[in-house]
Amino acid sequence: MLIIGEKLSIMAKTVREAMMNKDKGPIQDIATTQQKAGAGMIDANIGPAEDGGESLMEWMVSTIQEVVHLPVCLDTTNYNAVEAGLKIHNNEWGRPMINSTSNDPERFPMLELAAKYNAKIIGLTVGKGGLPADAEERTAIAAEIMGRAMEYGVPLENLYLDPLVLQIATSQDHALKVIKAIKMFQELNDPAMKTVVGLSNVSNGCPKQLRPILNNYFFSLLMYEGLTAVIADPHEITTTVKTINVILGKTLYAHSYLEM
Amino acid sequence: MLIIGEKLSIMAKTVREAMMNKDKGPIQDIATTQQKAGAGMIDANIGPAEDGGESLMEWMVSTIQEVVHLPVCLDTTNYNAVEAGLKIHNNEWGRPMINSTSNDPERFPMLELAAKYNAKIIGLTVGKGGLPADAEERTAIAAEIMGRAMEYGVPLENLYLDPLVLQIATSQDHALKVIKAIKMFQELNDPAMKTVVGLSNVSNGCPKQLRPILNNYFFSLLMYEGLTAVIADPHEITTTVKTINVILGKTLYAHSYLEM
Repeated sequence: MLIIGEKLSIMAKTVREAMMNKDKGPIQDIATTQQKAGAGMIDANIGPAEDGGESLMEWMVSTIQEVVHLPVCLDTTNYNAVEAGLKIHNNEWGRPMINSTSNDPERFPMLELAAKYNAKIIGLTVGKGGLPADAEERTAIAAEIMGRAMEYGVPLENLYLDPLVLQIATSQDHALKVIKAIKMFQELNDPAMKTVVGLSNVSNGCPKQLRPILNNYFFSLLMYEGLTAVIADPHEITTTVKTINVILGKTLYAHSYLEM
Repeated sequence: MLIIGEKLSIMAKTVREAMMNKDKGPIQDIATTQQKAGAGMIDANIGPAEDGGESLMEWMVSTIQEVVHLPVCLDTTNYNAVEAGLKIHNNEWGRPMINSTSNDPERFPMLELAAKYNAKIIGLTVGKGGLPADAEERTAIAAEIMGRAMEYGVPLENLYLDPLVLQIATSQDHALKVIKAIKMFQELNDPAMKTVVGLSNVSNGCPKQLRPILNNYFFSLLMYEGLTAVIADPHEITTTVKTINVILGKTLYAHSYLEM
């Protein structure tokens, strides 16, 4: 399970302020803490970043990679900011990931960048037409994204299909549809397609004490169905990752497995 | 999800002493507490009970049903003790369950009792030959038990197939085999066969702090695969039951769903 640490997001006040002031300390602390908690990649969500996106993404990637030897997930809709991040990214620590392309024509060009820089890329199964209705529609969109990735010269092993997790508080029926989609996506290719979710969205809008419970149980079912990667708070999910891996026989049981 | 409260077991010192002294207080306290925590049936495990089993099971059933209006799961290998329990059981609160028959000829006669008293019965997929090797062998044994149940006149809707949960500390590969067996058992009939597990056995022998974690994550995957009933500590699993039911869309989400 590839854990992509979600905490460096412009949605968080501390992070937003650090980005504005180009204050490396808070960014590097959060990056380091997420690595210690098990992150294998760090998400850098700079928002739409219409002004100064290129220099902001450059600064984020270099600030993060100064302290953690991990690849970065470049999370913005700004094409130029993504390219700036890809140029400065140190691939010695793993290849970067672009977050994201989709079935919306405005997001097609991200595939050019993925091809040019041999980057990983998330394919979010939404289009111009709004939210997908069910697992089948998500899978049909996924197939379109796969076809387009091949046209742009992106190898399918670099593509991570994302079924779009919705809020359980407002779209309860989509929780099971997303789990089903994770299963169906894998069957679109042999070897199986890779998959990813933005986990915490499932509990968005729920009372604070419920959020880790919903996130972790939902995640346990996604892991069972073969999820490859997750954008999440690594601290929150580490027990689930280790326990499900033991139950599924992916890591050996030891009395101390939670400490490993 | 039918929760069968496991706490009234001769394996627990308090319970064993209360059984020896015919002291109703501790038995009734534990029965009541389990009902409040969500149990829909109370397991009465009196062990092999070779001496005085009949009067002990009678006493257990009447002691429990004096305070909780729930059916009892009669848990002993002693045929006469099971029959004594069935005779005294108050079916107004639901039909009793026999724990258990299996592919061991010594356990066949339990099916006579199930037929005679229209009781539910657990079919444990083990035989004289030792532990089943995998999900396929469990399913083959399940099919034999189903055939035998029909010969004895036990309707298949009264049969709960139990794949035999083994300890993850010593038989790690069986955890996934058991989950797979739960899925396969259901496909043996239409409408789907009912299933049950003795949950806490998965974490038997594990450090105390790991047990609820392993039990609950293992249980979440079993619920996802359609498990019908569970023998467990109702206090320990209530959050899992409620959360998985919300994720699977079996109960409606509300911000207060854990308190309902």
